[in-house]
Amino acid sequence: MSLTIKLRIAPTISHFDLNRKTQKNPIISRTPIYHSNKLSTSLLFRTKKMAASHVIKSSLIEPDGGVLIDLVVPENQRELKASQAEGMEKVQLTKIDLEWVHVISEGWASPLKGFMREDEYLQSLHFNSLRMKNDDGYGSIVNMSLPIVLAIDDATKEKIGGANDVALVGPDQKIVAILRSIEIYKHNKEERIARTWGTIAPGLPYVEEVITPSGNWLIGGDLEVLSPIKYNDGLDNYRLSPKQLRKEFDRRQADAVFAFQLRNPVHNGHALLMNDTRRRLLDMGYKNPILLLHPLGGYTKADDVPLDVRMEQHSKVLEDGVLDPETTIVSIFPSPMHYAGPTEVQWHAKARINAGANFYIVGRDPAGMGHPTEKRDLYDPDHGKKVLSMAPGLEKLNILPFRVAAYDTVAKQMAFFDPSRAKDFLFISGTKMRTFARTGESPPNGFMCPGGWDVLVKYYASLQTEEAKATVSA
Amino acid sequence: MSLTIKLRIAPTISHFDLNRKTQKNPIISRTPIYHSNKLSTSLLFRTKKMAASHVIKSSLIEPDGGVLIDLVVPENQRELKASQAEGMEKVQLTKIDLEWVHVISEGWASPLKGFMREDEYLQSLHFNSLRMKNDDGYGSIVNMSLPIVLAIDDATKEKIGGANDVALVGPDQKIVAILRSIEIYKHNKEERIARTWGTIAPGLPYVEEVITPSGNWLIGGDLEVLSPIKYNDGLDNYRLSPKQLRKEFDRRQADAVFAFQLRNPVHNGHALLMNDTRRRLLDMGYKNPILLLHPLGGYTKADDVPLDVRMEQHSKVLEDGVLDPETTIVSIFPSPMHYAGPTEVQWHAKARINAGANFYIVGRDPAGMGHPTEKRDLYDPDHGKKVLSMAPGLEKLNILPFRVAAYDTVAKQMAFFDPSRAKDFLFISGTKMRTFARTGESPPNGFMCPGGWDVLVKYYASLQTEEAKATVSA
Repeated sequence: MSLTIKLRIAPTISHFDLNRKTQKNPIISRTPIYHSNKLSTSLLFRTKKMAASHVIKSSLIEPDGGVLIDLVVPENQRELKASQAEGMEKVQLTKIDLEWVHVISEGWASPLKGFMREDEYLQSLHFNSLRMKNDDGYGSIVNMSLPIVLAIDDATKEKIGGANDVALVGPDQKIVAILRSIEIYKHNKEERIARTWGTIAPGLPYVEEVITPSGNWLIGGDLEVLSPIKYNDGLDNYRLSPKQLRKEFDRRQADAVFAFQLRNPVHNGHALLMNDTRRRLLDMGYKNPILLLHPLGGYTKADDVPLDVRMEQHSKVLEDGVLDPETTIVSIFPSPMHYAGPTEVQWHAKARINAGANFYIVGRDPAGMGHPTEKRDLYDPDHGKKVLSMAPGLEKLNILPFRVAAYDTVAKQMAFFDPSRAKDFLFISGTKMRTFARTGESPPNGFMCPGGWDVLVKYYASLQTEEAKATVSA
Repeated sequence: MSLTIKLRIAPTISHFDLNRKTQKNPIISRTPIYHSNKLSTSLLFRTKKMAASHVIKSSLIEPDGGVLIDLVVPENQRELKASQAEGMEKVQLTKIDLEWVHVISEGWASPLKGFMREDEYLQSLHFNSLRMKNDDGYGSIVNMSLPIVLAIDDATKEKIGGANDVALVGPDQKIVAILRSIEIYKHNKEERIARTWGTIAPGLPYVEEVITPSGNWLIGGDLEVLSPIKYNDGLDNYRLSPKQLRKEFDRRQADAVFAFQLRNPVHNGHALLMNDTRRRLLDMGYKNPILLLHPLGGYTKADDVPLDVRMEQHSKVLEDGVLDPETTIVSIFPSPMHYAGPTEVQWHAKARINAGANFYIVGRDPAGMGHPTEKRDLYDPDHGKKVLSMAPGLEKLNILPFRVAAYDTVAKQMAFFDPSRAKDFLFISGTKMRTFARTGESPPNGFMCPGGWDVLVKYYASLQTEEAKATVSA
């Protein structure tokens, strides 16, 4: 499992210092995540010994393209770059565009170095992968299933004219990045939607909220982010970059990292699965498998549980001992959610390779949702794991299919479903769980740890209070 | 350019004999295509010297997967197989299904050995490519951009039950093939259409005529075709299989084969391009480049010029000396047309690799058409060649982008467009050409050879006569 990895070390590591401010969420402070002081020390120590392209040994999987991309401008160049950016034409970013800037800048999409140019966009749409360029023009293939693009409208395109570089302006009207050597090309929304989602039915959340209102042009180029993206929502400390996660896995001397992507509260069925996975990895001979519990932190649809509530719920799961803090890292994956099923699950897995995970747990209908206009799942629930297991560029990742867990009414706990006594099992869907939480009814004992359940009940109660207020004032 | 190719030689070559019946179209008999007597001799000669997996040297490109697929049952086993098929559940084929049986059986889709099972279907839809299986599970990638699938309805699925094999019945109610080790899976038409065409707009010809009326299930399996597929339309002699084409290229000692896919009449702009390509290949050092002029012979939309008229027109182009018969092979590509632009052009190129072409000429908007509901091209006219040049599995094929030819009003002939004197050039679109032919108006002198033009004029005159009759009788 030992791989030789080339890391390009930036001349300074100063932008990591921003993570050191003690922006702690008191509720989740026990969660055994990244300890900034330790990490910084270890980084400083390493930096002293390492030259710009020094080769280090690591137990972790190689990032896509061989080099983890880091597009945050070193601190000693920020002033210069910021003043250059002032003189450039400006492109306004939405909140979700900024989430993508964050994603790209930290190398989750390695080897992508900016918003996609047309060549990359077309490869992503048609092949769900990118070919790396090497000397003979035919390099290796990396997975890239979602188009990571920036849309602009006609007026902005006009304003940019023949400029080579533009400045990207965040929702707070501050310049956050430069996009260099830009290329502007047509944004055929219909084709993008059809090839990404396999449908153009009205009601796809990301389409309606992001793509439909966006401009008719896409602008690609090389990204330089003026400083690390922060949200100041009390959770920035949990937003570890792939580089930080890799360092932490090394620090913990992980010989296997298994990632669990989620956008929902953790119930005991999930926990059973994660603990069982660890046991299986130990059986396979790994000495120190580490779980990356990795909730998605970017855009989600309105009826999903919000990030702060989920983070609080996850912390309770660790506090209650359902998952072992010693072998678990909880961190936030900054990507927005597409709800694009088999296409998107590849992105979710690929990004975790870049963060150092060499095992990926895939469930039923990953990144799926109900069809927006028909009474069925939008995707065949089995297609996600099938497509993932065959996806180009993901060969080096070990895919672990999700075993179905349900509530065992005899054992009175969540257990792996046993078809020989099917009638003993109760399946509690997300919808059913939300109904329980909303009505204040308790789920069967053992479904979720009490601390975690309380978080959900309080959240839904607060929603009802708001709805009641809205009804009264309407 | 010399490659070592493994050819699996069938125990008998008897099915080639069917091509020997002198089913000649008098109009196109001069076309210098396959001479069955010479080819048979050469085949017999080789067969004597070759064992089942003998390795021969060939100047031609290796077929996808290394072995050219041939699924036609050897003659000495046909009776047995036919009697087995009688006892199987029957699946009714449409005319277009039968065209696909033809395509698969001759190895145009190598390494595909039958209609796609779900694993192949999903890879085709999501990645436009298939991964070959080898010992460690990770083989090389071959291009496979169109799902080549067989749809069945609920009643047929019910009837098949748990059978392992089924018999495929042609439109004439005769059993044409066996499909073995079948797998039946859901036919999500919406997803198939969206991912293949990049739109689900109403009015896509293949969708309306083939997919929408088809069943809700797909059936995959290994194909055994009881005898070579024939159409008895006077053109079967021009339907050379990839194996026959490869033999012919070898017989002619071709050291480069450049394929030109078309579904339209050949005008002098096309001819200029093909002759220019040959000249460029000679300049590159090839001694004997052969042109494969390869009209598509399967399903086309109603307003395209029919195959028999096109074949007649092509033969005139050779008779009139616009193309050199000595270095040209005219043959029919049996595939149906999807009009799926960048997705389909990959199929067109990939199939020609299997026929031995190592150069492929790609034009503006290949396999494109107008958007069925909007006033624009369905695809960006540049995307076809861009996608083709980046497509996984097509690395070994040399892509030759089409140079734009137009009518030079000064030189009074078709010439490569020279932007420095743009006003001298006249672009004659397909629509304009058809209008000329319909109204009997002559196009500018030098647009098309007179013999070829007459064929078109006569065809459109016959259409008008029929329309007039229909109007009178209505």
